[in-house]
Amino acid sequence: MRLKGIIAAAATPLRADRSIDLDRLVAHCQRLVALGCDGINLLGTTGEATSFSVAQREAAMRAVAKAVPLQKLMVGTGAASLADAARLTSLARELGFAGALLLPPFYYKGITDDGLQAYVEALIETAGAEGLRLYLYHYPLLSGVPYPVEVVARLFAKYPAQLLGLKDSSGDMGYAEAMARRCPGFDVFPSTEAGFASPVAGLFAGCISASVNVTASLVAEGRKDPAVLAQGVAIRNALAGVPLIPAIKWALADLTGDETWRRIMPPLHPLNEDEIRKLGAALHETRYETLAPLFRR
Amino acid sequence: MRLKGIIAAAATPLRADRSIDLDRLVAHCQRLVALGCDGINLLGTTGEATSFSVAQREAAMRAVAKAVPLQKLMVGTGAASLADAARLTSLARELGFAGALLLPPFYYKGITDDGLQAYVEALIETAGAEGLRLYLYHYPLLSGVPYPVEVVARLFAKYPAQLLGLKDSSGDMGYAEAMARRCPGFDVFPSTEAGFASPVAGLFAGCISASVNVTASLVAEGRKDPAVLAQGVAIRNALAGVPLIPAIKWALADLTGDETWRRIMPPLHPLNEDEIRKLGAALHETRYETLAPLFRR
Repeated sequence: MRLKGIIAAAATPLRADRSIDLDRLVAHCQRLVALGCDGINLLGTTGEATSFSVAQREAAMRAVAKAVPLQKLMVGTGAASLADAARLTSLARELGFAGALLLPPFYYKGITDDGLQAYVEALIETAGAEGLRLYLYHYPLLSGVPYPVEVVARLFAKYPAQLLGLKDSSGDMGYAEAMARRCPGFDVFPSTEAGFASPVAGLFAGCISASVNVTASLVAEGRKDPAVLAQGVAIRNALAGVPLIPAIKWALADLTGDETWRRIMPPLHPLNEDEIRKLGAALHETRYETLAPLFRR
Repeated sequence: MRLKGIIAAAATPLRADRSIDLDRLVAHCQRLVALGCDGINLLGTTGEATSFSVAQREAAMRAVAKAVPLQKLMVGTGAASLADAARLTSLARELGFAGALLLPPFYYKGITDDGLQAYVEALIETAGAEGLRLYLYHYPLLSGVPYPVEVVARLFAKYPAQLLGLKDSSGDMGYAEAMARRCPGFDVFPSTEAGFASPVAGLFAGCISASVNVTASLVAEGRKDPAVLAQGVAIRNALAGVPLIPAIKWALADLTGDETWRRIMPPLHPLNEDEIRKLGAALHETRYETLAPLFRR
């Protein structure tokens, strides 16, 4: 039971009152598996995890854990608060998730290496080390707190049974490569399906990607056919030309015909008309329009 | 009931298990009032609010609300999650706090003005506008999300009864001045007691300061005597020469003789030996050593 391959950073559908629409979330995760994803990363950045309370996140974890094979499930458990992160990480273990994806604490900035290491150690101590399946979540642009390679290496040396890997959302393939080379046996996941076409793709365990919410079928087929992978990457590039998370939600609304998918938690907001026009024009140059039948079933 | 003057951003004492030491917190807040503070900002950045769960923050709010006059109490209620921030803000109203200090949501970055405004409006709508006493908390260095003056002006125009003011921790006195001039009747609090010596001090409602945990008595006397205020500012400058929050906790341990004050939530960590030497040397040049009797009572 080790997460590998194509992992979708699932978007989170909302009800009109800004609560998580659990039924639609479960159906979306099941569809992503049916479309060829090897795994689901529930409640990551794309899933707007940090915009929800612990209770809301717990309810989503419980709903999806009942409906999707657990060996395919990773869940974001990071929080600014140590107690919250420990509680969510414990629940991921209790429910049997294959991985818990841990942001660094993301309010204070200019954190020292020792402070960051102490935080991860305190998290493991608070949750209890036994049976933890942790992945670190490196996204310095949003968290403001990078996971330096040497800090990760020290933690991996201390907790080889608990620390299984890292998601690299820095967009810096050099960091992903350095991390993978520094810690053999530690699974590194870049955040884009373009990583599969990288000359060093063999160093990585797969990808954990936002755009796979839309491109899953192309990326799954693209593992065997570089031309099809390129079609998926072209759609990703179009989506990333406007704010990415609202773009994913716009595309899911568009492909499914379910307008509730456009709902998003503030401070993010739905694409405006200019952005929709720009995105539509960019997607028109790709194979995007062939995907709709897969989402209307 | 309007907060004014010298407001201490109270540090939060911890038990050995990293929970909030409620008895010591209450005693510390009471001492700050006795030393001349006009108000207490509970659970701000100095108070490590975001490092605690909602339940931990609620318990601290309830304990202090019973022990300190409510018209002197402000409390940080910001959180990455809208639901958490709304719940804490509602509790501040229910308990009768004179103010709730609201960080912007601080995980996502590159937030648009419209997204930020929509978040504050959603917070007010979720908590219910009636009886809210909100202060915005501008600390872009940590939150990564500034409150632009024009966004604040729009919100103040829409919610003049709910939005009472803003704490400016940017360190940019130009921002504080622009904010105060743009919105007459809206209370702006710079984050340092040095603001009282500013040529535009009359524009401000007071200060909300971390170092007042240590310098309260000097700043209180300093409102009438610039030479004494300068002594307080000199101590602040010494504390700010090393990581400020651990420095405040070190000084409280040193002044009270209670070593438990050095405890701090990861990812922050206690001052190391080099930092303590540097801070000690800097404080030796100030009136710091005369303060100890006030903390031993």
